[in-house]
Amino acid sequence: MTSDRQPYQRIMRVCGGLPIDSTPVWFMRQAGRYMEEYRRLRQRYSLLELCRSPELAAEVTLQPIKRFDLDAAIIFADILLPLEALGVPFHFAKGEGPVLEKPVRQASDVHALDVVDAEERLSFVYQAIELVRSRLEPDITLIGFAGAPFTVASYLIEGGHSRHFVKTKLFMYEQAEAWHTLMSTLADVTLRYLQRQAKAGAQLIQLFDSWVGILGRHEYSEYVLPYSARILRALQESGIRTVHFGTGTGAMLDLIKRAGGTVIGVDWRVDLSEVWDLLGDKTILQGNLDPVVLLASPERVKEAVLRILDQTQGRPHIFNLGHGILPETPPENVETAIQQVRQWSSTNRER
Amino acid sequence: MTSDRQPYQRIMRVCGGLPIDSTPVWFMRQAGRYMEEYRRLRQRYSLLELCRSPELAAEVTLQPIKRFDLDAAIIFADILLPLEALGVPFHFAKGEGPVLEKPVRQASDVHALDVVDAEERLSFVYQAIELVRSRLEPDITLIGFAGAPFTVASYLIEGGHSRHFVKTKLFMYEQAEAWHTLMSTLADVTLRYLQRQAKAGAQLIQLFDSWVGILGRHEYSEYVLPYSARILRALQESGIRTVHFGTGTGAMLDLIKRAGGTVIGVDWRVDLSEVWDLLGDKTILQGNLDPVVLLASPERVKEAVLRILDQTQGRPHIFNLGHGILPETPPENVETAIQQVRQWSSTNRER
Repeated sequence: MTSDRQPYQRIMRVCGGLPIDSTPVWFMRQAGRYMEEYRRLRQRYSLLELCRSPELAAEVTLQPIKRFDLDAAIIFADILLPLEALGVPFHFAKGEGPVLEKPVRQASDVHALDVVDAEERLSFVYQAIELVRSRLEPDITLIGFAGAPFTVASYLIEGGHSRHFVKTKLFMYEQAEAWHTLMSTLADVTLRYLQRQAKAGAQLIQLFDSWVGILGRHEYSEYVLPYSARILRALQESGIRTVHFGTGTGAMLDLIKRAGGTVIGVDWRVDLSEVWDLLGDKTILQGNLDPVVLLASPERVKEAVLRILDQTQGRPHIFNLGHGILPETPPENVETAIQQVRQWSSTNRER
Repeated sequence: MTSDRQPYQRIMRVCGGLPIDSTPVWFMRQAGRYMEEYRRLRQRYSLLELCRSPELAAEVTLQPIKRFDLDAAIIFADILLPLEALGVPFHFAKGEGPVLEKPVRQASDVHALDVVDAEERLSFVYQAIELVRSRLEPDITLIGFAGAPFTVASYLIEGGHSRHFVKTKLFMYEQAEAWHTLMSTLADVTLRYLQRQAKAGAQLIQLFDSWVGILGRHEYSEYVLPYSARILRALQESGIRTVHFGTGTGAMLDLIKRAGGTVIGVDWRVDLSEVWDLLGDKTILQGNLDPVVLLASPERVKEAVLRILDQTQGRPHIFNLGHGILPETPPENVETAIQQVRQWSSTNRER
């Protein structure tokens, strides 16, 4: 890798329709508890302390890059960070996930959100991005991200993790005006947050609508799509490439694509070949190994990776999981998966 | 309703391709905690005590029939009852769902299952079915059911509810032979259990593969489909009509249909019109109101019911939820939904 040539970022080349020498690969939650390096830091710092310290966040972001042959670093942050900036504090309860002290339950809670300049209160994220970009090899893409309005709204309303998303859906059905105000607010704040991430050095932006698969198509179209679309279109108009990701979206992928995104991220429930049939061969897909496969034997990992790659048939693809790496994942299996992507690419890709 | 004419079971007429005067309607978990009558019984008896007493199970089965204008009663039972019969005891822990004392974790656990005549140890279910059938008006269909092999296997292996189904998938990947033995065993026992239910008076059988949507298409095809198909085909060959139901199946509905079932049950994530486009207009669909909608206002309930009915366009349909009724459901909303089905049918159906 020499510094006197143009950077060769595979992911950005795929996004730009350029030829590549290997299918690019990165993993959602590639910096995390499955890595000993990360667990050592977590003995001294909480998750939120790591996020709020640009130096520590940069260090964690770079941990998997030092260890694996990855095509992207994703800034270490949490999709709930904007909640604090909006004046809704939360903490992580042991074994329970996030707990919000004052969930949003009515219109007045929506109006009480501290929206003005909320993105300014997340400057530690931008500083971490600047640090990572200055330390990252130029051939590796730096990814910024945020939770999509629906997924963030669901945490705001439920007050934490949820199984049936009853409070969120009832808010949507019964307080439609407040819902639309909330989604519009979240879309605006999220857009400004992501624009600042891009300005700080994030070259690709992933919008995580992780829980949107709990909705029906009508609900997604009416209550969610316009707000994700507002963010994704504005970024596109600024020349910023995006990944639009959700889980359980097998029955709404056409709508996800309609909402926008340079790349559509899908989970393991779908076959990539069928998604291309549905959305068109030129659609750039990201995914979609089941994270559980990375807990299996190396043979199963290789088989499952090949099964995905063999569906591509020259269509534009960024290899990833279908959701985040599980904490129990052996790092050797991450290595095995990457090697399989590289090996397959060396015989199946034209340079 | 007179006894000197032929029974007019709308559900069985839909299954047989006959004209009907109204879209048939029933609700998964229509006997349950949302009804005061049920809660009163539960103050005195546990869930399993209700299941094991034919008299009480019959009483609970008939509670919603007395209160609502439903087209079917579904026998009150639990999909885990066969576990006990197989020698795997379990109990329900408060707020946690089922807890198995000895989960299946290796091949020897599979071989230790007490398979021979397991269905004989579930005779209380058949007795309850006989009691209900004798008390039920002839125009109302009696539905029997069982968990499909995958969903039952997932409980057997996880030992209770699960979020990621890690143990189940790893068992599938790493102990494939034991997995196939387990699934084959469950298919055989389940088939005999369902045949006995039919013999006792269940006119329609629903196979609940509630959690199958956690799988990818390849896994479903290779590890699950053959076993559900074995049950559904054998029932069909005996002239027994079936409903094949799962949630989160939007990306595998063609495979669900391939596995079999007179009727395909779908959850709220799909639009019925698109499922008919995919599976063919003659496919009989059951569903698919989001159970959360029944917690909303009557206006929202009516709207959502109409949105489903208006997609049917004369195609064969049994109205239901996309999953079980939630305990917080106001019974008035169940009434409202049924009335909406009847009212829509009176203007949209030709007799």
